[in-house]
Amino acid sequence: MQKMDGMNYAPVSTGKVDIVVKKGAFKFAVIGLDHGHVFAMTNGLLEAGATLTSVYDSNDSKVADFLVRYPQAKGVDSIETILQDKEVKLVVSAILPSLRCDLGLRVMEAGKDFFADKPGMLIKDEVQRVRQACNRTGQKYFIYFGERIHVEGAVYTEKLIQSGALGRILSVVILAPHRLNAPSRPSWFFNPKQNGSILVDIGSHQIEQFLSFAGAKSATVVHSCKANYNNSENPLFFDYGDANLVADNGATCYFRVDWFTPDGLKAWGDGRVFVIGTEGTVEIRKYIDVAQSSEGDHVYFVDKEGEHKIEATGKVGFEFFGKMILDCMNRTELAICQDHTLLAMDLAIDADRMAEVIATGTY
Amino acid sequence: MQKMDGMNYAPVSTGKVDIVVKKGAFKFAVIGLDHGHVFAMTNGLLEAGATLTSVYDSNDSKVADFLVRYPQAKGVDSIETILQDKEVKLVVSAILPSLRCDLGLRVMEAGKDFFADKPGMLIKDEVQRVRQACNRTGQKYFIYFGERIHVEGAVYTEKLIQSGALGRILSVVILAPHRLNAPSRPSWFFNPKQNGSILVDIGSHQIEQFLSFAGAKSATVVHSCKANYNNSENPLFFDYGDANLVADNGATCYFRVDWFTPDGLKAWGDGRVFVIGTEGTVEIRKYIDVAQSSEGDHVYFVDKEGEHKIEATGKVGFEFFGKMILDCMNRTELAICQDHTLLAMDLAIDADRMAEVIATGTY
Repeated sequence: MQKMDGMNYAPVSTGKVDIVVKKGAFKFAVIGLDHGHVFAMTNGLLEAGATLTSVYDSNDSKVADFLVRYPQAKGVDSIETILQDKEVKLVVSAILPSLRCDLGLRVMEAGKDFFADKPGMLIKDEVQRVRQACNRTGQKYFIYFGERIHVEGAVYTEKLIQSGALGRILSVVILAPHRLNAPSRPSWFFNPKQNGSILVDIGSHQIEQFLSFAGAKSATVVHSCKANYNNSENPLFFDYGDANLVADNGATCYFRVDWFTPDGLKAWGDGRVFVIGTEGTVEIRKYIDVAQSSEGDHVYFVDKEGEHKIEATGKVGFEFFGKMILDCMNRTELAICQDHTLLAMDLAIDADRMAEVIATGTY
Repeated sequence: MQKMDGMNYAPVSTGKVDIVVKKGAFKFAVIGLDHGHVFAMTNGLLEAGATLTSVYDSNDSKVADFLVRYPQAKGVDSIETILQDKEVKLVVSAILPSLRCDLGLRVMEAGKDFFADKPGMLIKDEVQRVRQACNRTGQKYFIYFGERIHVEGAVYTEKLIQSGALGRILSVVILAPHRLNAPSRPSWFFNPKQNGSILVDIGSHQIEQFLSFAGAKSATVVHSCKANYNNSENPLFFDYGDANLVADNGATCYFRVDWFTPDGLKAWGDGRVFVIGTEGTVEIRKYIDVAQSSEGDHVYFVDKEGEHKIEATGKVGFEFFGKMILDCMNRTELAICQDHTLLAMDLAIDADRMAEVIATGTY
C-alpha cells in the first residue's frame, strides 16, 4: 500500500477481518469520485461483506478508473438511477466537499443512508440541515473519519481506553501533519469555499478523535488559529491550523494540522496522538515510526507496571465498517452516534470561524 | 545519574566539556538549598571551570549534605558573609521560589550576578523589580531553565535551527509531563504562593524554550488553562496546565505541563519537543525513548533528504554555563539575554493569570 500521498491512502486489512453480512445482503452504490478517499471507503465496506452495485460520476474517466479497481460495479448514467434503485441501502460519496451536504440530503430523502468522505459539511447551516433531515427521514449520515476508523493503532487505543487501562482521560494531543504535494492537487483543494478550510477539512478528523478517545458527549472550542505561512500563490488557502477544546467531562484537547510534511518522510504524515489518563499514557505513531520503521500503528502505552510497545497492525482490524453496515440494517448506533458525527463537524466549523489568522502568505 | 525523580535530576557532561576560565579566576557561592536543582546548577558551573567558594542555608543538614558533595566549599553562617565577599562574582540559589526575587535583588545590590533556579519570579511585580534592578545595578539575573540548557538534545536542536536546516520556524509543541511522587515533596511545593502555579513553575521552562527555538523577540499568550484533576488533598495545587502563544515572528506554541508521569516510566518524564519549519521538522525525546531506550537526547530530524536520527548525548555538551561565566566576566550576553529571561517569566505569569480553571480536584 502506498503511503507517500494521503489523498490516495486506502488501507486494506492485513489481519483481523469480520464479515458481518451474507453475500448480497447489503448493497451500496458510489456517487462522486472527486477525492481518493472513495477507494478507502469502498475497501472498508467490501471487506466487511457489503456488495458494491453501481457508481456514478459526471467525469467518465474517473468512473473508468473506479471500474478497473472494482469490476463488479456497474457505471450508471445519473444520480437518479442510483437513488431509485431500491436494492441500494447506502450511498458512498467523495464528491466535492461543498456538494456533499446537498447530495446527502437527496440520498436521505430517497430513503437511503449516506456515507460521506470528511469533511461531511462545510458550514453551520449544512450541519443543521443534515440534523433536521436525519430526524425527519430517520436515515443516517456517516462521515469517513479515516484517521481514527481506518488506523489500527487508533482502534487499538480506543479499546485500551474503554478497558479502563488509562483511568480517567485528561488530555488528548494530536499532531496531524500532511504532505501537500501541491502540483498533484485539484484547484478546488485550495479554495476553502469548496474544500473547507484546514480546520474543517483535516481538523474535523482530529476533533472526532478527541471526542472518541475522551468519551465526550459535548465540547467547546476555546481557542483556534490558522495561517498561510508558505503558500502565497494560493491566497485563500491555509497551510496551518491549531485548536484547543475542552470537553464536558473536563478533558482537554490540542490539535495541530498542517501541510508541512518534509519530502524526505516515508509517509504522507507523521501523525501522532498522545493521551493522558490518571492511570497511564498512550502515544500512537500512526503511519510511521520516524527513522525506525516505515510501518505504522505503533502504540506506546505506559502504566504503573512499565513501558509497553504494541504493534497493532493486523491485531484489531477496522471494525467500524462492519458495525456501520449492521447499523444500517438494524437501525442501531454501534459504529458511531449520529449526534457525535454532527458534533464533530459543528466543532470543526466553530474552530474555523473563531480562528485568529496569524499569517497570510505575505510574510 | 538517576532520572526517576526530576527534583534531584542533576546532569553531568559525558562528552564535550569546555573549560572557559583558569582555576580560581571565577568564583561563585550558593545561598539556599531548597530545591535539588542546586546540584545541577553547581555541576554546570564547576564543569565550565568556575570555583565554588561558600554555601549558606538556614538548614544545617542541607548544608552538610551539600558539603559532602562539594567538599571544596565552605559553609558560612549568614547570607551577609557571602554578599560581603568581594571574591564572589555570582550567587547561585535554589531557595524557596517565593524568596528568590528578594534574594536576587539583595545579591545584585551587593554588586554580584545572580543565578536562580526556575521559576525566577512568581508575580509580575517581581519581574518588574528585577528588570529595574538589572538596569540600575548593571548586574545580571540568570534563571536555570534546565529543560533547555541542560539537555543535549535541546542544545543540538538549537544549533540545527540556527544552521537554517529547518528553514523558517512555524510551530513549537512541547509536552512536559513530570513525575509527582507526592510523598517526596515538601509542603511548599503544593502552594502556588510559595512555588508558583504549574504554569509558572514548570511552564516557564517551556515558554523559554519556545522563545529560543522560534528565535522570538516577543510573544503573546493567546490561551491557557490549568486544572487540579487528581489531587484533591492539595486543593491549591494544579496538576495540569497548558497554554498557546504566538510570537512576534508568527510562530505558534502549544505546551502542556502535567504531573501524570506513570510510575512505570523509566524517567521522571517523557519530555518531547516538536518543531516545524518550512524546510524540515525536529522531534526531541529528551529523557527517554519510550520502550526503546532509557537513554535520553534522541533527536529525530526530517528534511527533504530523509529521516535522520541523532543521538546527541556527549556531542554538544552544556555550553550555557561556560557562556554564562564569560557573560559575567565580560558583561556580554552570549549565554542568554536579560530581556529574554524576563520575557519568559512575564509570559509564564501571564499564562497563569489568564488561565481558565477547568477542574478543581472535586470531580
